[in-house]
Amino acid sequence: MNRQRQMEDIVIIGSGNVAEALAIAFADAGQAPLQIFSRNIEEGKKIAAKCNCFFTDDPAAVKSAGLYIIAVSDKAITSVSDSINFGNAVVAHTSGSTPIDAIARNIENRAVLYPLQTFTKGRKVDFLTIPIMVEGTTEKALETVTEAARLLSGDVTEVASKQRAMIHIAAVFGSNFTNHMYAIGELLAKEAGMEFSVLKPLIEETAMKAVSADSPLTTQTGPAIRNDFQTKSHHCEQLSEKPDLKNMYITLSNSIWETSKKTSQK
Amino acid sequence: MNRQRQMEDIVIIGSGNVAEALAIAFADAGQAPLQIFSRNIEEGKKIAAKCNCFFTDDPAAVKSAGLYIIAVSDKAITSVSDSINFGNAVVAHTSGSTPIDAIARNIENRAVLYPLQTFTKGRKVDFLTIPIMVEGTTEKALETVTEAARLLSGDVTEVASKQRAMIHIAAVFGSNFTNHMYAIGELLAKEAGMEFSVLKPLIEETAMKAVSADSPLTTQTGPAIRNDFQTKSHHCEQLSEKPDLKNMYITLSNSIWETSKKTSQK
Repeated sequence: MNRQRQMEDIVIIGSGNVAEALAIAFADAGQAPLQIFSRNIEEGKKIAAKCNCFFTDDPAAVKSAGLYIIAVSDKAITSVSDSINFGNAVVAHTSGSTPIDAIARNIENRAVLYPLQTFTKGRKVDFLTIPIMVEGTTEKALETVTEAARLLSGDVTEVASKQRAMIHIAAVFGSNFTNHMYAIGELLAKEAGMEFSVLKPLIEETAMKAVSADSPLTTQTGPAIRNDFQTKSHHCEQLSEKPDLKNMYITLSNSIWETSKKTSQK
Repeated sequence: MNRQRQMEDIVIIGSGNVAEALAIAFADAGQAPLQIFSRNIEEGKKIAAKCNCFFTDDPAAVKSAGLYIIAVSDKAITSVSDSINFGNAVVAHTSGSTPIDAIARNIENRAVLYPLQTFTKGRKVDFLTIPIMVEGTTEKALETVTEAARLLSGDVTEVASKQRAMIHIAAVFGSNFTNHMYAIGELLAKEAGMEFSVLKPLIEETAMKAVSADSPLTTQTGPAIRNDFQTKSHHCEQLSEKPDLKNMYITLSNSIWETSKKTSQK
């Protein structure tokens, strides 16, 4: 699995889902991280074992490397980046919604490496097709983080903090809110005495259809896009004892209709 | 592809997505429809050609059969079922949200055959795993429609009209509203200068993760489930010029949080 050329050593900071996914992906690409640094000894050691690399929970024992990837919660990025001496290395965070300057300003070579995917412990994803968005405050920072991203994926793009934050909101709709639609589907299926599994073929086909299309605006189906008053009003009657869901049903149905009017005007 | 035993002849009424999907699925199961009846000559003939069966657009020329499947728009079910002489045959509609009694009351053997899936012209789906919900006003109606459904799918369940309508709302969330989340994702990605395709790996993984899980309530991620005020408020700021999307963002984020509180109390 070794690539032609090894890049500079990488240290990964954090032990959550993103840290684990990146560490394993770098190892799979023949460039295992040199070290994992995490305050969570148990999780950090697990990741280090999977990648056959060093581990430490002591900020003073963080090894010297060319690229430090801070994969911690958004709000911890600043304090973590301030608590370690990175020398002249490149320090990147992995957050969609956090500006590059959340990394401590005394670090010259600040960068971002944002993989647009949802990561779950124990679920392996194919990194090669994941869009990775990179940014750097210096040429060196951008080059280093781009080189690292290209080890993992064929889809690496330079994206500024403001655009990246908008893409992150797009991802919240395309993933977090989508999953919530599944969850409401489950609650309603259970009301009808059935299990979530009854919705699985539908969920799978809906995603596959969108992925095969150029635009989901063209594949919208259902009562809202037909503006089918009768069905919508039946549905609202059935949801009358669940005001929150009824309200959401109306909001989303209206949004489908308004969106279709706006986009067909173009 | 022939099964052991042929059941009674089937006539399919309609030429939309569901009519096409059912006609092809019956043909693939070795029990091609005897005839397609549709007012839309062009679409009806296309389906008949695909199934190598008869076609008519004349209600007086509808052939004698054991099972008539009315796959037309919900609001046309009653008038279509009233416009043809079905004799003593079983007459089924395919609608999730329509009661069985939308079929004209003078027909004794009324039935429902509701496949829980989204159908798109030209996209073939694997019928074997699609849940099919059946209902009948008589033993004969229920038996006939169950037998037909079992030709197509390994997942056939008797479900009363009221439960079926609730499942249909679950499907609206799991498919129509889900697709709308993808569409909003596209609009926001374009705001950031990117195409819908940037979201495809995320959409695919989100669906596959839910399909692999027992419950999407356990796989929820993102700022809403963490109640991450800082990220949510950044997102709302960025959506400030799009009040509809900002409103939807807040509604959905609150719903994720409230749902997680309710379901974790259980």
